[in-house]
Amino acid sequence: MTLTTVDEVEAAAARIRSTCVRTPLLELPDPALDAPLWIKAESLQRTGSFKLRGAANAVAVLDEDARRRGIVTYSAGNHGRALAHAARAAGVAVTVVMPDTAPPAKIRATEASGAVVMVRRPDDIMTHASLLADREDRTLVPPFDDPHVIAGQGTVGLEILDQLGEVGTVVVPVGGGGLLAGLAVSLKSLRPETRVIGVEPELAGDLAEGFALGRRATWSRELTTRTLADGLRAAAVGELTWEHITALVDDVLTVSEDAIVRAMRTLAYEARLVVEPSGAVATAAVQHHHRSLGRGPVVAIASGGNVDLEAFASLLRG
Amino acid sequence: MTLTTVDEVEAAAARIRSTCVRTPLLELPDPALDAPLWIKAESLQRTGSFKLRGAANAVAVLDEDARRRGIVTYSAGNHGRALAHAARAAGVAVTVVMPDTAPPAKIRATEASGAVVMVRRPDDIMTHASLLADREDRTLVPPFDDPHVIAGQGTVGLEILDQLGEVGTVVVPVGGGGLLAGLAVSLKSLRPETRVIGVEPELAGDLAEGFALGRRATWSRELTTRTLADGLRAAAVGELTWEHITALVDDVLTVSEDAIVRAMRTLAYEARLVVEPSGAVATAAVQHHHRSLGRGPVVAIASGGNVDLEAFASLLRG
Repeated sequence: MTLTTVDEVEAAAARIRSTCVRTPLLELPDPALDAPLWIKAESLQRTGSFKLRGAANAVAVLDEDARRRGIVTYSAGNHGRALAHAARAAGVAVTVVMPDTAPPAKIRATEASGAVVMVRRPDDIMTHASLLADREDRTLVPPFDDPHVIAGQGTVGLEILDQLGEVGTVVVPVGGGGLLAGLAVSLKSLRPETRVIGVEPELAGDLAEGFALGRRATWSRELTTRTLADGLRAAAVGELTWEHITALVDDVLTVSEDAIVRAMRTLAYEARLVVEPSGAVATAAVQHHHRSLGRGPVVAIASGGNVDLEAFASLLRG
Repeated sequence: MTLTTVDEVEAAAARIRSTCVRTPLLELPDPALDAPLWIKAESLQRTGSFKLRGAANAVAVLDEDARRRGIVTYSAGNHGRALAHAARAAGVAVTVVMPDTAPPAKIRATEASGAVVMVRRPDDIMTHASLLADREDRTLVPPFDDPHVIAGQGTVGLEILDQLGEVGTVVVPVGGGGLLAGLAVSLKSLRPETRVIGVEPELAGDLAEGFALGRRATWSRELTTRTLADGLRAAAVGELTWEHITALVDDVLTVSEDAIVRAMRTLAYEARLVVEPSGAVATAAVQHHHRSLGRGPVVAIASGGNVDLEAFASLLRG
């Protein structure tokens, strides 16, 4: 498999400029570190997550004919909403196949972004989206295992290097691995000495296990759905993201559910950010593993902020 | 009284550059408006509020002798914390006189920022700070009624003009009026056609009353403490801020407590920001008075994000 190059990430950055915003890099005073912890607030990206970057790049590379035929994807959450937004901005028709376990509010938000939503059982959404793409001759835009999506997510790394100058370690949430793969491409190409570390919930630790064993591991849905971090429940990283991760990433850590909730509170109270559980795992890793992280400055990616307010309020209260 | 000039605001911007960050201007999709509502996220300023701008400017203008003698202020909240941070960054000793009604967490946060905290009854904090300044020959830095503080707060306006290009209307929370006065100076000097609108809680509507009558009104503490928006409970705007407001501001609106809470929810859910009640009043005004606001693009200032997590969680749940 061919790895994505930093040239492709830079081309993506130019393509997505009008659809995505440059997100702020915020300081979180951290008594455990000598320096502040830097938070890359992708929760403040349009549609509330980094997913818009990859989605916007995947839409931007479509040729005229593909744009006319439309696109399709499968997603329980942020990727579907992001792709709907990117497609509408580009005037491209999009269908999102969502699991029937998705909260009605997420389905409505995806529809409100301009998508046609189809609902299927969780195990069937990928197959159904593929069938639909074949039958209607539309382009399937997968949530992570796609070179254009990886290149789009890598633009987060270009912004960090531009915003911070010197970067020691970047800590990244992992579900399917698109963000980790893309960031590793841009950071390791432009600053090979930067440490790039993936983080998973312990309860969805398929990559941590596979990374230690040297072969891609798959966990059952029964296992991965135990975590609060609903954006990180992928049963395995992708085949393409796996190749990037094994070639470029320094380490993969896991964090407990308690640590995720504590990090959400820290981000709300000290960084004044609403971050979803998946978006808090990198901060949780810094709070709990700071000795294993390597040198600073340390950047934690707060990957998204799409959370039900009732659930968010309960977690804040503990 | 002499009004602050835009030259003084521009000088302040240069002075505070290393102490303050440039806060992001975020889009909030607003179905009630043709265009998005823009949120100037001062909740993401260091120390969690715009107050750091005025405080940093007031510290930066001290001469060598005044720096050695130290400074003093009185504050229940964000100004004290901001001044403590600015003074520490500049190596200047600071005492903050706080009311004995302040939550212990706010007192600890102010101490953690490097201040000596003295606690007095709410009615006595200003007098005590003045006495202390006289007795120890220190500079008193008041929370709003001061030309250097006003000039510092005005730097928010310079950033908005730089970030947005065209600005129709800017909506601003009012307690003592420092932010409104400073913003009015920068916006009306550089873009006289911009509408500048102040917003108060109905329950602390002293400026709205005074603005309508054409003379500065004072409300009792019993009245103003009824509002959730604890940063906007000043009994009256200052004498100096009043002069700026009557000369430059287009209108003053009020919002209900319910509207403030709804705006906090909107900001948490759609802008993914943790905003304190005082920081939500401008967004509340846009949601409730959008017909009276005048032309867009409309910018609402989210002035601060320092809120107790328990209280924040309760408000989100309703």
